[in-house]
Amino acid sequence: MMSSIRRSAIVAAVSLSVLVSVPVGAQTAPLASWNDGPTKQAILNFVRATTDRSSQQFVQPDERIATFDNDGTLLVEQPLYTQGIFALERVGALAEDHPEWKTTEPFKSVLERDEAAMAKFTEADWEKIVAATHSGMTVEAFNEIAAKWLATATDKRFKRHYTELVYQPMLELLSYLRANGYKTYIVTGGGQDFVRAFAPRVYGVALEQVVGTAGKTKLEYAQNGQAELVKAPEILYVDDKTGKPEGIHLVIGRRPWGAFGNSDGDMQMLQWTQAGGGPRLMMLVHHDDAQREYAYGARSKVGTFSDSLMSVAKKGGWTVISIRNDWRRVFPFDP
Amino acid sequence: MMSSIRRSAIVAAVSLSVLVSVPVGAQTAPLASWNDGPTKQAILNFVRATTDRSSQQFVQPDERIATFDNDGTLLVEQPLYTQGIFALERVGALAEDHPEWKTTEPFKSVLERDEAAMAKFTEADWEKIVAATHSGMTVEAFNEIAAKWLATATDKRFKRHYTELVYQPMLELLSYLRANGYKTYIVTGGGQDFVRAFAPRVYGVALEQVVGTAGKTKLEYAQNGQAELVKAPEILYVDDKTGKPEGIHLVIGRRPWGAFGNSDGDMQMLQWTQAGGGPRLMMLVHHDDAQREYAYGARSKVGTFSDSLMSVAKKGGWTVISIRNDWRRVFPFDP
Repeated sequence: MMSSIRRSAIVAAVSLSVLVSVPVGAQTAPLASWNDGPTKQAILNFVRATTDRSSQQFVQPDERIATFDNDGTLLVEQPLYTQGIFALERVGALAEDHPEWKTTEPFKSVLERDEAAMAKFTEADWEKIVAATHSGMTVEAFNEIAAKWLATATDKRFKRHYTELVYQPMLELLSYLRANGYKTYIVTGGGQDFVRAFAPRVYGVALEQVVGTAGKTKLEYAQNGQAELVKAPEILYVDDKTGKPEGIHLVIGRRPWGAFGNSDGDMQMLQWTQAGGGPRLMMLVHHDDAQREYAYGARSKVGTFSDSLMSVAKKGGWTVISIRNDWRRVFPFDP
Repeated sequence: MMSSIRRSAIVAAVSLSVLVSVPVGAQTAPLASWNDGPTKQAILNFVRATTDRSSQQFVQPDERIATFDNDGTLLVEQPLYTQGIFALERVGALAEDHPEWKTTEPFKSVLERDEAAMAKFTEADWEKIVAATHSGMTVEAFNEIAAKWLATATDKRFKRHYTELVYQPMLELLSYLRANGYKTYIVTGGGQDFVRAFAPRVYGVALEQVVGTAGKTKLEYAQNGQAELVKAPEILYVDDKTGKPEGIHLVIGRRPWGAFGNSDGDMQMLQWTQAGGGPRLMMLVHHDDAQREYAYGARSKVGTFSDSLMSVAKKGGWTVISIRNDWRRVFPFDP
């Protein structure tokens, strides 16, 4: 029997090879895990309008940019963002070197597994935890730590590695857009370096196509005189809300034609996409399927989909994806 | 007779089509404007070592990143960086809306064309000039202003548009690396948005492959409710010296295999490249040809090539390109 790590590596390899084997313009049913209906049709219409040379809305290949939020849009984000779980577990792993954490918040609550206290963590508490666990090592060392953790840590409900909890319909959408000449970018409020640790393997998205909240780095010289880049505790910019279009301009320099999100943090990215005019596609994943995944909305602590976002979406004619109705399959491991 | 603007557009189109028409692995003499010798050989050896599948130093295609400084490495930077000239001319263009500039430094000196005072401008003076001329408009509006200026403004010595003053051997190097699977990036201390205004046309480098000093942007809502990105006067990060490897990690997320510069501001980028180990190529353009271009070095105000950079280069075994000896042709318009 294969170990679960090896099995997951093989699953990932197989799903990636499926992703890249779709020939450009293939007529074999794309988006197989999407139910037929207006949501799927909106995607097909968008791709046809922007890639058919005879279309009046044809978009030049080098302008074809599509941006995807990560947590809750491509990957399960409940009960907590994957990176949050990683950060909490890193506090435990690093506690030995930080005896002061036993008596200092927010670390004390994390080490005592005080769920009630942790549920009340503020943004500032989280920033302290992320700064303490995501800095002080080279960018390469951080990547190794994150990759190693992702290969072993397991979600409690699904008993799967976190990077297995990706949405099969969204993988198909990424693949379908790429097969039609779109460059697919992740634009995440999460840490850019953390998401880079799995984006190529899990999404087929290259390192340079991950835009996220970025910590500062610092060029230093090791004892042997070699230059190295060390992760610093300060944040350079927060890639959330207005930070998403700002981050897109910074890293990509182009306005997307398609933008995909699931929460209030994605609103501005979709608004800026739409303001470009023409046949833009704005989509929001709505988590309304407690049985197969989760159902959450305006009162959620994570991935809040507020009533005001819903009204902006309706007014703008954006497409709201219902997981319950639009997705035939949710996860790659679903039957 | 064609207008010079139309002619330059045609020249650009022709040179681009030459760039992209080189077939992968073509045996027709690459680097035709480089004289034979150890410098040219260093490039050929690097490409062979990293792209020949039978080489022990073979580099996977998706890891093939090469980074190029802009001013002085790809483009003439004397007597002043192109963007500096642009900023000074914009002060004149905007003066009518800023009557206070007549009595406020550094604007007063610019408006009075006081060359002696301008020669003494500090970094802080330049920051004020750039902030005043590079902000307060949408990112699209700035791009138009820059592109329009570049299409008309002319260098005094060569009587050419500034973007015609690119180094033919470096265009061939960009093209040769791309033909061998390298992604070519500009990594400039200059403004990212300014360089984006000409990088695709002049270098065949896509917008998303320009890394530079970046101003903050701000998502705002226009009177019609449309979201727009407005350039703010604050600097997000300075992509120079240690900022170059930091900017590379931020935007690309990979260490380059080849890095090309010409001044003290590029040293850290080349050091970090070299520290990755393996067959990395570090090259510095040395401006030693007053007749065909310029000769400048340690005491230059712009693009300083200090003695200490030369000693780091020698110690590291970096390749120093002598314009006088290594380049058969300097500019595309040279005979």
